[in-house]
Amino acid sequence: MPDVSPNAVAFPAMQPIAGVRLASYAAGIRYKGRDDVMLAELAPGSTVAGVFTQSTMPGQPVIWCQQCLPRGTARAIVVNSGNANVFTGRAGWQVCESTATTAAGLFDCDPQDIYLSSTGVIGEPPPVDRISAALPHIVPLLDAAAWDKAARAIMTTDTFPKGATATATIDGAEVRINGFCKGSGMIAPNMATMLGYVFTDAALPAAVLQALLAETTEASFNCMTVDGDTSTSDTVLLCATQQAKHAPVTSATDPRLAGFAAALRTVMIDLAKQIARDGEGAGKFVTIDIIGAESDRAARNIGLAIGNSPLVKTALAAGDANWGRIVMAVGKSGEKADRNTLGIAVGGHQITVDGGPVPNYNEGPVAEHMKGLEIHVAVDIGLGSGKATVWTCDFTHGYVDINGSYRS
Amino acid sequence: MPDVSPNAVAFPAMQPIAGVRLASYAAGIRYKGRDDVMLAELAPGSTVAGVFTQSTMPGQPVIWCQQCLPRGTARAIVVNSGNANVFTGRAGWQVCESTATTAAGLFDCDPQDIYLSSTGVIGEPPPVDRISAALPHIVPLLDAAAWDKAARAIMTTDTFPKGATATATIDGAEVRINGFCKGSGMIAPNMATMLGYVFTDAALPAAVLQALLAETTEASFNCMTVDGDTSTSDTVLLCATQQAKHAPVTSATDPRLAGFAAALRTVMIDLAKQIARDGEGAGKFVTIDIIGAESDRAARNIGLAIGNSPLVKTALAAGDANWGRIVMAVGKSGEKADRNTLGIAVGGHQITVDGGPVPNYNEGPVAEHMKGLEIHVAVDIGLGSGKATVWTCDFTHGYVDINGSYRS
Repeated sequence: MPDVSPNAVAFPAMQPIAGVRLASYAAGIRYKGRDDVMLAELAPGSTVAGVFTQSTMPGQPVIWCQQCLPRGTARAIVVNSGNANVFTGRAGWQVCESTATTAAGLFDCDPQDIYLSSTGVIGEPPPVDRISAALPHIVPLLDAAAWDKAARAIMTTDTFPKGATATATIDGAEVRINGFCKGSGMIAPNMATMLGYVFTDAALPAAVLQALLAETTEASFNCMTVDGDTSTSDTVLLCATQQAKHAPVTSATDPRLAGFAAALRTVMIDLAKQIARDGEGAGKFVTIDIIGAESDRAARNIGLAIGNSPLVKTALAAGDANWGRIVMAVGKSGEKADRNTLGIAVGGHQITVDGGPVPNYNEGPVAEHMKGLEIHVAVDIGLGSGKATVWTCDFTHGYVDINGSYRS
Repeated sequence: MPDVSPNAVAFPAMQPIAGVRLASYAAGIRYKGRDDVMLAELAPGSTVAGVFTQSTMPGQPVIWCQQCLPRGTARAIVVNSGNANVFTGRAGWQVCESTATTAAGLFDCDPQDIYLSSTGVIGEPPPVDRISAALPHIVPLLDAAAWDKAARAIMTTDTFPKGATATATIDGAEVRINGFCKGSGMIAPNMATMLGYVFTDAALPAAVLQALLAETTEASFNCMTVDGDTSTSDTVLLCATQQAKHAPVTSATDPRLAGFAAALRTVMIDLAKQIARDGEGAGKFVTIDIIGAESDRAARNIGLAIGNSPLVKTALAAGDANWGRIVMAVGKSGEKADRNTLGIAVGGHQITVDGGPVPNYNEGPVAEHMKGLEIHVAVDIGLGSGKATVWTCDFTHGYVDINGSYRS
């Protein structure tokens, strides 16, 4: 078991959300001595939105959720860790059907209102009945306060549980947003990434949730990378229990949702950053701000090219102010750039100007900043107004160790 | 200094090529106690072709070569290692001009017939006169047999010199092809990659060389990756001294060039594979054969997605038969794929069928193969007739160490 990330943050105090109860359970799917199944119950009438991996090899639970999503309603979410139920053929699909049918019986709903995720090793057939058999034991444990336990039950190589919370008002009524997620390796967002579950008591239809979730994913989970490897199980669900007492809102662009959208963004960015903080083997948490690109999308691609570069990440791990590798990464991104307008700063210290290092460049303050746990890289492409912020981590011996022994 | 790669191959015995002489020299640019400048002299009238990095941040020598290339003639090549002369502003350009002007004086030619490359740390201004000052000392050392020394002088983190040789006939006349290259990290081909110099005595115009070089690069250097990071200095030159006694050939598709084209392909694929064998920190040499893709380009993209995946590469390093990560990499490649037709074999042992593991899959023989130094991965996408072969290496502690201390 690796040590807790040096960039770990504490799990926040999270108040209950009316209509949400959580539980976790040790079903013995793969791990010993820890909970590996998470159950979230949603009040009848709850709405749901989801974004999923763009991989052409999605896991069975991803396909299950995508088939359920057009209904826009959810009654429960069942997640297991340790076995990803990906590339598992018919046996894997039967596990989905059996889990959903059993849960639907317990909650007196349609199986299509049961959302499923799984995370862990790919390609190993999951234990057929272990999750279904566990469900009757988990339901009595449901608890409106069990956020931390729920977040822990879905962890794989994560070293700390990840949660975030915010409040907002819609039309004068206070609403709450609580979210938790997992992710540490196989992290390179593409529409969605990792597993994330965000809950609110807001009374919002599924279509509104979906629009807000898709937009916010772009600026949060899709701006974060650990290793450039997109997971087959990426799933982020946003559930609304309809318990808050505000007037109906039927459009995601309704001005009354501005505060809610901002709070949702805060929660999702917070969760995304926690995944980068807990990247497998990570020693440093890295924020990359790009400005001056041709478009916001170009800025993000440049930021991800830097954030995914093994040469940049190994230099960061060593605290080596080898900024030439940032130049390399900008150059390989495929996005428009010009060395004569490229400005690079690290830790607030300007390094380049006019296609070369600044006159009398002094590496001292940059090297000092690089020794820290939190690194800031700022790149001005100098061509347009596109901007993005990308979060990542360094690349260490720990990553090699964790991923050479993950299955054992 | 890292140990020599366990997958190193011996430098081949290379016969002289009429019209080519080589020398190397210790100019003290960065390294101590080793040669760091390579000079290749070409007989007057030699033709040249080149392919270069697609990075938007090319080094000054790349820009210099691109400006010279339309002439199609070359009299000498000067390469230094230790300092890449990339992102070095005006000072870097002056080094190019000074080096080319000095060499042109020594060889009584136009400065535009002098080709330049440099490799090493990016962004540090090169020593202004050291290369120019060394040239008069290097010219007397020129020697038709100095292939191994030339290949050694351009190495950076390479652990062995890389050369390849072949003969062919054009219109009944025997011609020879000798090539050498360097490359170990910052290796992700995009049109060209790394530094490579290929020489022949064939009597071929520059346009014919260019067509052959571009086509062959696609199947050799562009099918190889170490870390997914595209260099700013990538350059491959193909030079023909016109000394062979065959009738003029004016088209790259002339059937009389079939044997020459095949020999060129053999040399360039051999060199590309040697770079993968010497990937920074590499313990294993990996060949990835893709068939059944929508197109050859799709097949190569899928192969590179597998070959660039940190999760696949760390599993390979550990000898872990974690084939689910190959599924993941195919899924993230962006190319069309379907799990139900996806066939994966490792070391000749079939692993998947019909969207899941083969019945009674036995990991034993796969795990045994994974312990070896040379790994073979075969993927059948099962959708079309596109195919490609990609060469790469594993991802080890050595890579992290080398790239945390490269500048020091």
